Amino acid sequence: MSRFPADSVGLVSPQRHISTEPLALACGRSLPQYELVYETYGQLNASRSNAVLICHALSGHHHAAGYHSEDDRKPGWWDACIGPGKAIDTNRFFVVSLNNLGGCHGSTGPSSIDPETGKTYGGRFPMIVVEDWVNSQARLADHLGVQCWAAVVGGSLGGMQALQWAIHYPDRLRHCVAIATASKLSAQNIAFNEVARQAIITDPDFHGGDYAAFGVIPKRGLGLARMVGHITYLSDDAMGQKFGRELRSERLNYDISSVEFQVESYLRYQGQEFSERFDANTYLLMTKALDYYDPARAHGDDLAKALAPVTARSLVISFSTDWRFAPARSRELANALLAARKDVSYLEIDAAQGHDAFLLPIPRYIQALSSYMNRIEVDA
Amino acid sequence: MSRFPADSVGLVSPQRHISTEPLALACGRSLPQYELVYETYGQLNASRSNAVLICHALSGHHHAAGYHSEDDRKPGWWDACIGPGKAIDTNRFFVVSLNNLGGCHGSTGPSSIDPETGKTYGGRFPMIVVEDWVNSQARLADHLGVQCWAAVVGGSLGGMQALQWAIHYPDRLRHCVAIATASKLSAQNIAFNEVARQAIITDPDFHGGDYAAFGVIPKRGLGLARMVGHITYLSDDAMGQKFGRELRSERLNYDISSVEFQVESYLRYQGQEFSERFDANTYLLMTKALDYYDPARAHGDDLAKALAPVTARSLVISFSTDWRFAPARSRELANALLAARKDVSYLEIDAAQGHDAFLLPIPRYIQALSSYMNRIEVDA
Repeated sequence: MSRFPADSVGLVSPQRHISTEPLALACGRSLPQYELVYETYGQLNASRSNAVLICHALSGHHHAAGYHSEDDRKPGWWDACIGPGKAIDTNRFFVVSLNNLGGCHGSTGPSSIDPETGKTYGGRFPMIVVEDWVNSQARLADHLGVQCWAAVVGGSLGGMQALQWAIHYPDRLRHCVAIATASKLSAQNIAFNEVARQAIITDPDFHGGDYAAFGVIPKRGLGLARMVGHITYLSDDAMGQKFGRELRSERLNYDISSVEFQVESYLRYQGQEFSERFDANTYLLMTKALDYYDPARAHGDDLAKALAPVTARSLVISFSTDWRFAPARSRELANALLAARKDVSYLEIDAAQGHDAFLLPIPRYIQALSSYMNRIEVDA
Repeated sequence: MSRFPADSVGLVSPQRHISTEPLALACGRSLPQYELVYETYGQLNASRSNAVLICHALSGHHHAAGYHSEDDRKPGWWDACIGPGKAIDTNRFFVVSLNNLGGCHGSTGPSSIDPETGKTYGGRFPMIVVEDWVNSQARLADHLGVQCWAAVVGGSLGGMQALQWAIHYPDRLRHCVAIATASKLSAQNIAFNEVARQAIITDPDFHGGDYAAFGVIPKRGLGLARMVGHITYLSDDAMGQKFGRELRSERLNYDISSVEFQVESYLRYQGQEFSERFDANTYLLMTKALDYYDPARAHGDDLAKALAPVTARSLVISFSTDWRFAPARSRELANALLAARKDVSYLEIDAAQGHDAFLLPIPRYIQALSSYMNRIEVDA
């Protein structure tokens, strides 16, 4: 008998889609061939109408639900929402989750071998943007025999992908679920990303992105980048509740190098742990992809115009204390969808956890997402 | 005829106070001797009752008003508020502004020579906290013949010093003006400071604080620290209004190393410029001093209890879009002063500029400060 919870998708195995057809990219370059690693949960129905695509955020990957081995301690990153009877119900839906191009979890990215040189791409990997991801995801859909997604779902950077699907492939999705996202970053968002990038790029172990050739990784820079990111994922209140001014030891040391407060050691740990498991070039690429996305730009900054092609119904969700992608940014999107006369539902969830809330099992959020997903019609 | 504006204090010269009496510090160590560099504006009256102390913030110094030479392009950092007829009126007040101990603008600090070793202090400079600054400022007051300040005034970290004066030397000030400050940092505040410190400490050119001995400075780390700081000094809206998503060139480059947005090059410039003029050890010390300050800690986190000794009248000012020291933090302080039955005025200024607002000539702010300062009685 399995040790996994009854509402888990259980043991899952990554699969691989190899494309030998060149992919033209927004940057003007193209990838001659590439691989995408992905997972699926649930069964594709006979009419192929029950497929749901999950798009991941900055540090995400294909492993969204279930376990990779019997003694796997942690399930996939969105296991709270994906499984039998869960909000994205695998008894009804065939769920597809991939690692995006440029990622560092198995899909072709900066750590992959460049077939033209036989060496790691490193700093020579092309820039990949949201539009490119969606194009590569459309090819994955072709490969899986999915002409039209029941829904494309994503939070944060993943929400931008869901939105881009609705704009660029209106015939290929019925529902767009964009959570804790925005149609473009603000100057402050870009500024935080730029700090993260500068931390990585100025690390002497970065070597212009070719650190692999030197047998090192820019750990310092990547750790700092994660520390900055982490602060912006939590609300001021959430940090206050979690750490307050709690000390690491009974009394203060009053010196410059001591770690005095719990929040300091927590952040240092987060940075260090991340720098050992994530690729710095991928981090740069993901932050740039966030910066670049701005579908209204080609329409004189008129977002409603950019949304004109959309036919999908949309659900837009924000969280009250999210200051990285504040509710006001989601309202902008929802209002532009309304202005473009689209079918949109908007929900702001009262939650103390900041941007991180979109990954957490907050009852009202899960209920709302569940109720929306359950109303999506699928053939038996 | 002078080229300086009529409401400027004009040409000013820094002065020096040398103390050979050891100063016992909160950290348990002591400074055998030290120097403080300071400036004064206006005239001390016969009863020595018109002196106002200005306390500086993280990157501030003694040069608060006026000019150092005829062709000085920029006046002191708070010239908007200090001068004849200005909010802190030098026709009425004798204004004193110093560079704090541990600073890098002339007062004894990590870049000074340790008399015991004949070498730069570097990483061996003792930790200095708000309480130590106030004690050293009290000695400066003795030196100047000022028994009781008409007011002690400060913004941000300077506001903490004003508050500490009111708590620790209740007989030595009549008014405490605490602007854009808090009685203690939040976990998020500490977290941002910790990112800044880690950026500096992990810079290979830091050498445990002894970079001077190696003939280098940790520019990368200090630049990053400033970039992070700078984002937190501005509001999201202010950044949006100043930069939006404005591009540096006509079209996007779509590559990982390009600086695409104006806000990116602005931040890089701010970081670089700062790293060439400020000392990294001082930056570490100042952020630690911010973290440590928490007068309620010795009173079971009861701020009203900590404020019991206060006899000064207080003016507490906050700015609506300041998220580094949010209005809620100033209200905490004002409410605790009320709970302790002290005389306090609280004012929240509607201003788009975030934390930086406290340095800017925002009319309603200047008028309010001016009107409060003008009501302070001074002998002719």
